[in-house]
Amino acid sequence: MPSASVRNFDRTGTHGQRRLALAHVAALDRWMASLVQQSIAAASVRIELWDGTSPFSASRVPVGDLVVRNRRTLFGLLTNPELAFGEAYMTGELGVRGSLEEVVEALTALNTTTSIWMGRIKTALAWPNTVTSAKRNAHRHYDLGNDFYQLWLDEQLVYTCAYYADRAMTLAQAQRAKLDLVCRKLMLRAGDTVLEAGCGWGALALHMARDFGVRVKAFNVSREQVTFARDRARREGLDGRVEFIEDDYRNASGRFDAFVSLGMLEHVGLHSYPALAAVLRRSLKRDGGRGLLHFIGRDVPQPLNAWIRRRIFPGAYPPTLAEVAMGVLAPAGMSVNDVDNLRLHYAKTIRDWSDRFAGARDQVREKFGDEFTRAWELYLAGSQAAFATGWMQLFQVVFSPKESAPPVWSREEWYG
Amino acid sequence: MPSASVRNFDRTGTHGQRRLALAHVAALDRWMASLVQQSIAAASVRIELWDGTSPFSASRVPVGDLVVRNRRTLFGLLTNPELAFGEAYMTGELGVRGSLEEVVEALTALNTTTSIWMGRIKTALAWPNTVTSAKRNAHRHYDLGNDFYQLWLDEQLVYTCAYYADRAMTLAQAQRAKLDLVCRKLMLRAGDTVLEAGCGWGALALHMARDFGVRVKAFNVSREQVTFARDRARREGLDGRVEFIEDDYRNASGRFDAFVSLGMLEHVGLHSYPALAAVLRRSLKRDGGRGLLHFIGRDVPQPLNAWIRRRIFPGAYPPTLAEVAMGVLAPAGMSVNDVDNLRLHYAKTIRDWSDRFAGARDQVREKFGDEFTRAWELYLAGSQAAFATGWMQLFQVVFSPKESAPPVWSREEWYG
Repeated sequence: MPSASVRNFDRTGTHGQRRLALAHVAALDRWMASLVQQSIAAASVRIELWDGTSPFSASRVPVGDLVVRNRRTLFGLLTNPELAFGEAYMTGELGVRGSLEEVVEALTALNTTTSIWMGRIKTALAWPNTVTSAKRNAHRHYDLGNDFYQLWLDEQLVYTCAYYADRAMTLAQAQRAKLDLVCRKLMLRAGDTVLEAGCGWGALALHMARDFGVRVKAFNVSREQVTFARDRARREGLDGRVEFIEDDYRNASGRFDAFVSLGMLEHVGLHSYPALAAVLRRSLKRDGGRGLLHFIGRDVPQPLNAWIRRRIFPGAYPPTLAEVAMGVLAPAGMSVNDVDNLRLHYAKTIRDWSDRFAGARDQVREKFGDEFTRAWELYLAGSQAAFATGWMQLFQVVFSPKESAPPVWSREEWYG
Repeated sequence: MPSASVRNFDRTGTHGQRRLALAHVAALDRWMASLVQQSIAAASVRIELWDGTSPFSASRVPVGDLVVRNRRTLFGLLTNPELAFGEAYMTGELGVRGSLEEVVEALTALNTTTSIWMGRIKTALAWPNTVTSAKRNAHRHYDLGNDFYQLWLDEQLVYTCAYYADRAMTLAQAQRAKLDLVCRKLMLRAGDTVLEAGCGWGALALHMARDFGVRVKAFNVSREQVTFARDRARREGLDGRVEFIEDDYRNASGRFDAFVSLGMLEHVGLHSYPALAAVLRRSLKRDGGRGLLHFIGRDVPQPLNAWIRRRIFPGAYPPTLAEVAMGVLAPAGMSVNDVDNLRLHYAKTIRDWSDRFAGARDQVREKFGDEFTRAWELYLAGSQAAFATGWMQLFQVVFSPKESAPPVWSREEWYG
């Protein structure tokens, strides 16, 4: 599976090398470079051409340099930055001197209303997440191999935003804190039945069963993840209470006390919201049922960038709160009880992932090649920047059938 | 002012009396009554005609009786319940035997998908709130006289949903807890400047200045409320820090650390959302600014009922969360940080108001007449039922400029 999943990457790196042959810097190149430089001037990121020259004014110390290694890349940055930035970074035709994270964050923090170009780059530089309802898409990302994710996720393999209740928490502690927060928000009680849509490697399902005594049906279309989760359930003696089902969650039947989904909605796509609403409507007990959706979102509707769609997340779309409220919850007859925006926690989560990724860089490179490694580094840096700057949001939404009482009298019960 | 405000009510009650002359109950009346009875059968509310007969089947004990005193009322209940229910209750042509609150709650809890009739009644039976941006409308409701509201609100005259952090709290304690919660959510610090849109009798503005050391500009179009608030500020020695301005909040100028509005959005109307967005955009500091909107809302868009519009709240519209997110916050460049649905707290608040209103019934009746008193009783009972059953929601939304950090790292800071 890994071999299929990385088919879009040039594992040898020779492609990039071949294109690095230097050409003369013409007047046209300098003009193009000055336009690109102008559009990102406010970020204090310096453009450097393949002859070492730069249109950057020396009045400020740059955050870092974008090193453009050929004309094709320069032309791409000017005319189609959405795709060109990621593609060129991946192959090495675009280099970053200085901290990749800092350069990407400076670019992401630019006010897009003053720069159409950056608006398009930003959409290029965002994106994490978990399981999908479209089998083919999920495989591309999630079947890269458990080994790959074990290199840089926490030991439970939780591939969604963590919750640093205390900022000093480690990644593993913050992931446990998140799982626990989700259970508290759902007010899980021993004996409750829970439907989980998109369960990743099973960490939440096992946490709910182990620490809250509930029975879980957890759906996932990724075979490798389901196999891993089942093994873990058996080892922990929880296989009697957690059923991992290799199938689309839309095929779930029965009535449940709670519904939960972490990091799946981004992969569902607007066109499938009515199907999700139908699942909620028929699966949640009308009296006493409650649910939680945890997803990457936006302030305003915007499609996902072409480079991320091509290289990282085929078919993904981060919705606005309004799209979820009107597209999923209202048609399902649900009331919104609570919305929590954890974007700063996601930025911190991704910084922790990036640190671990950097530590495992040689192993990743050995196995998947240089282009793949650089693509993932850019994806992580861009995602971190997007959450840090408010370009992307992370919503946890608690809901319940409108005729049912909300799960808690007040949040003091969750935090007090 | 009270005399103008009650011009729509017949203060003598003779109108109602005149119409109570009993007529023969014809076969047509019995047929109409059976249709009305069928449509509310699931609520176990009994219809009784003016000859004492009823189409209600005796198999269950009714929650209470709707006593229909003439044909005109029966016809109205069948053909135009939205307006007829409230109008007839007000005049006494429709009586309720048993607990008004329980009967109204039973009717409100009916599943509207099984009863178009009840869907229309429900919209008739909902509604509290505070100050408005449309001067004329505000006067109708809020200039009924401070004396009137002092009869049944808490001693601070807070006319919005309270927060019963502890269920045993009195109304006054819960109102203080709400004011405090709002300040905590806004992370107010000494020296901050705050813009309040629609400040009622000034309780929040004074609380913010007194307990959090901030400077407040508070707008209100109701002269009687502003006069009351200014007097109170002077008595408490807070007039140097709180400025009560008798004007539309849209005329506010300057930049503020925080924006807050309790119970005004319901009166703004969808058509004025762009104006509110513009105020937020120009008034909130882009770096470190934050805001809170507290408003009555709905799960799905729905106009306010004709009876409430005629008798209680001209021009009001309770929006969905999506309408506020897309109509106000997104155009203002704001991110949603947090949404809290306090509908059960509002149901409890209104029960407390109703208890106090019942205790002051004779005084209200003496001053405003029987029709007015009955209209307000129905309005309170209907509103309580609407929040108790999930027909109406109470949202507190915290937001901040998207390029700014959210006001807190996590809610533990509010509740911990």
